[in-house]
Amino acid sequence: MSTAWTSRYAQRTKNIKSSAIRELLKITQKPEVISFAGGLPAPDVFPAERFREACCKVLANQAQLALQYGATEGYEPLREMIARHTSRYGVKAQPENVLITSGSQQALDLIGKLMINSGDRVLVEAPTYLGAIQAFNVYGADYVSVPSDNDGLRTDLLEASLRLGPEFMYVLPNFQNPGGTTLAEDRRHQLVLLADRYGIPIIEDDPYGQLRYEGEHLTPLIVLDRENLRRDSGYTLGNVIYLSTFSKTLAPGLRLGWIVAPSEVIAKLVQIKQGADLHTSTFTQIVAYEVARDNFLDEHIKLIRRVYGERRDVMLDALNLEFPSEVTWTRPQGGLFLWVTLPEGMDCHILFDAAIRENVAFVPGDSFYAGDGHAEEGRRHFRLNFSNAKPEQIREGIRRLGVAIRNQWRKLHPRIDGPVDQHVFD
Amino acid sequence: MSTAWTSRYAQRTKNIKSSAIRELLKITQKPEVISFAGGLPAPDVFPAERFREACCKVLANQAQLALQYGATEGYEPLREMIARHTSRYGVKAQPENVLITSGSQQALDLIGKLMINSGDRVLVEAPTYLGAIQAFNVYGADYVSVPSDNDGLRTDLLEASLRLGPEFMYVLPNFQNPGGTTLAEDRRHQLVLLADRYGIPIIEDDPYGQLRYEGEHLTPLIVLDRENLRRDSGYTLGNVIYLSTFSKTLAPGLRLGWIVAPSEVIAKLVQIKQGADLHTSTFTQIVAYEVARDNFLDEHIKLIRRVYGERRDVMLDALNLEFPSEVTWTRPQGGLFLWVTLPEGMDCHILFDAAIRENVAFVPGDSFYAGDGHAEEGRRHFRLNFSNAKPEQIREGIRRLGVAIRNQWRKLHPRIDGPVDQHVFD
Repeated sequence: MSTAWTSRYAQRTKNIKSSAIRELLKITQKPEVISFAGGLPAPDVFPAERFREACCKVLANQAQLALQYGATEGYEPLREMIARHTSRYGVKAQPENVLITSGSQQALDLIGKLMINSGDRVLVEAPTYLGAIQAFNVYGADYVSVPSDNDGLRTDLLEASLRLGPEFMYVLPNFQNPGGTTLAEDRRHQLVLLADRYGIPIIEDDPYGQLRYEGEHLTPLIVLDRENLRRDSGYTLGNVIYLSTFSKTLAPGLRLGWIVAPSEVIAKLVQIKQGADLHTSTFTQIVAYEVARDNFLDEHIKLIRRVYGERRDVMLDALNLEFPSEVTWTRPQGGLFLWVTLPEGMDCHILFDAAIRENVAFVPGDSFYAGDGHAEEGRRHFRLNFSNAKPEQIREGIRRLGVAIRNQWRKLHPRIDGPVDQHVFD
Repeated sequence: MSTAWTSRYAQRTKNIKSSAIRELLKITQKPEVISFAGGLPAPDVFPAERFREACCKVLANQAQLALQYGATEGYEPLREMIARHTSRYGVKAQPENVLITSGSQQALDLIGKLMINSGDRVLVEAPTYLGAIQAFNVYGADYVSVPSDNDGLRTDLLEASLRLGPEFMYVLPNFQNPGGTTLAEDRRHQLVLLADRYGIPIIEDDPYGQLRYEGEHLTPLIVLDRENLRRDSGYTLGNVIYLSTFSKTLAPGLRLGWIVAPSEVIAKLVQIKQGADLHTSTFTQIVAYEVARDNFLDEHIKLIRRVYGERRDVMLDALNLEFPSEVTWTRPQGGLFLWVTLPEGMDCHILFDAAIRENVAFVPGDSFYAGDGHAEEGRRHFRLNFSNAKPEQIREGIRRLGVAIRNQWRKLHPRIDGPVDQHVFD
């Protein structure tokens, strides 16, 4: 009977490959490791006291509601809060346009379940968020990858890919994961127009949009699309499904995200979510609402921007100081990540092994490409997170990484002068 | 583009039919309605003060852990607690045999994702839990239904169905939802032996097992299967995946369930869960652990047994008093539900409409049959929940239902003497 299991699983799980990054991240959890690998918020910024007050209040006044089953759509005051929040940027979202999800990851899963049949194509950026690849792979997605540069997705290359008839486009316009890049204003317009012309829906994933440390807020695709809608269509929202989350602003341990979409799309997603987990925890929803309300979240986000903005600066300065000039990286205006490009011939996996020996971790670049054919490209990149480690750890970690890079570089180009690994034993 | 959406959804969502019961349950949420419809625990029994203490403790001492991302497998001390708890009944479960899920509903979804390809057959009881049907439908399941009686699944009819080659069996051995029946000891042995002989895995769903109000605890299938395992197989668990939840013992608003399975099955489910929602809320897991620990949960379950056991008795007495002798019902030894059978010619949907006019609700029986061909059978049944309403509401609700039944009965058999609807205007 054990063999019955094994063969049955082998058959059922063909699209679920063991996640190398999962195993890798386990290594990075040792306390002595300076990790730039995960996408973890800074735990020292979590508003623990505000959470404590909210829990006390909820359990004193609303325990029977908070501990009971709830509606699949989510806690109504929280949906209203999110609708109001979204409307700030110019979308007239109503509560019926909002579905609360168990983190943004569940939003990706529900969308995959709704829209992907095995063999369907999904258009993604190269590189793109690996959690989305994981969610869509389960449904048997094929991929069309469109390259990106410092201004985000190359919309000048988009049309040829749209002609291949993808089911939808998945894009992260703000401080992209892993690229750290932001989709330029003119490209946003082009993207929305092309999506409309080819009838291809857009999934706009925006977990970091509020974490901007410099420059001007750019209009979300869902708003541009709305402006673009024919007035007589009778819809208040059109071609874009917008995703966001409390994971990067309040706390990821809550597992609270949301979807904003036309109400008929929300209705379908509600049915799917009901089969998936009935509803997201009533308790965490009510607590999050009580934490966020009365302007607390807006004020808290200002604190996060200060802290993460400083860490970004520290990392950029350290990179300038420690990395050889042959290595380049993006300069994100917000978010949690930047993206490093190694010179030709270097391999991020060899570097990873060397870095781990020095107790520094990052995520190798090839994890962020969907479908086949990107292995070589991926190995010349890696992703660095700057939100989780403290400034002094960032400086030390980047210093060690710089040494590891120089060592690998030296092996490739043995004529370079001098003992470049001297720092390792400082 | 709006039409592009609509046709795309119509195409994608073919297995997701609008849930009639969902709409129906909305009616039952009006405060004036006495609802026997949902499977809701009694909110007056939630241990709110214990939750408040646990939240304070966790946020004072472990906030950075509780609010941060966590492992997909779940919070380790909680997995250990569940492994210890499971081991009480004779299964040598280790933490690596336990996966924490976002409620039992997610366990059903993950299992569907792991094991069902479109058109695959799933063997279920008739009737069975409608949430399982919903979860499996999404993956395109077909069904083989095996009838049940007062001793649960008719294992004497099982072999013919197993020959049809279902991917797995889904069974609820204890206080079945909706039947309220318990699978008899000898049938448990037969079930496990037949499953082994035909190489068909068993999903044992046990949300109510601890809520027994009379009679002896019966051995779970996962334990019988273990006893049945060849000693040289090298596995500590075999052919059964066991599901349970905190929803009926602590609070459903937490959305915390678990899966016990062979570690190689758990490893696959972990990968699937990672794509589905990364992990279940760290915060609710740690809080639930702090609430449950130091024997609190065991003591609390004694309280729940007293309260629900009393409500079951009140409902059984009221049924004896108010329902005509042509109507029959099950006498559950535990759990939350009992199952009513109407005499031939009566229709639970006509009854439902009449009951709703009198502000009483239940779930019509046809919601609990998987696949086609059960409509007529289903309409002669309905499910009653006895955990949520208070004793005086139970008496009054059953009285009104009795009147509605007599009225319908009278229309079918006009020769019955006397004004049977006199109570309606009491």
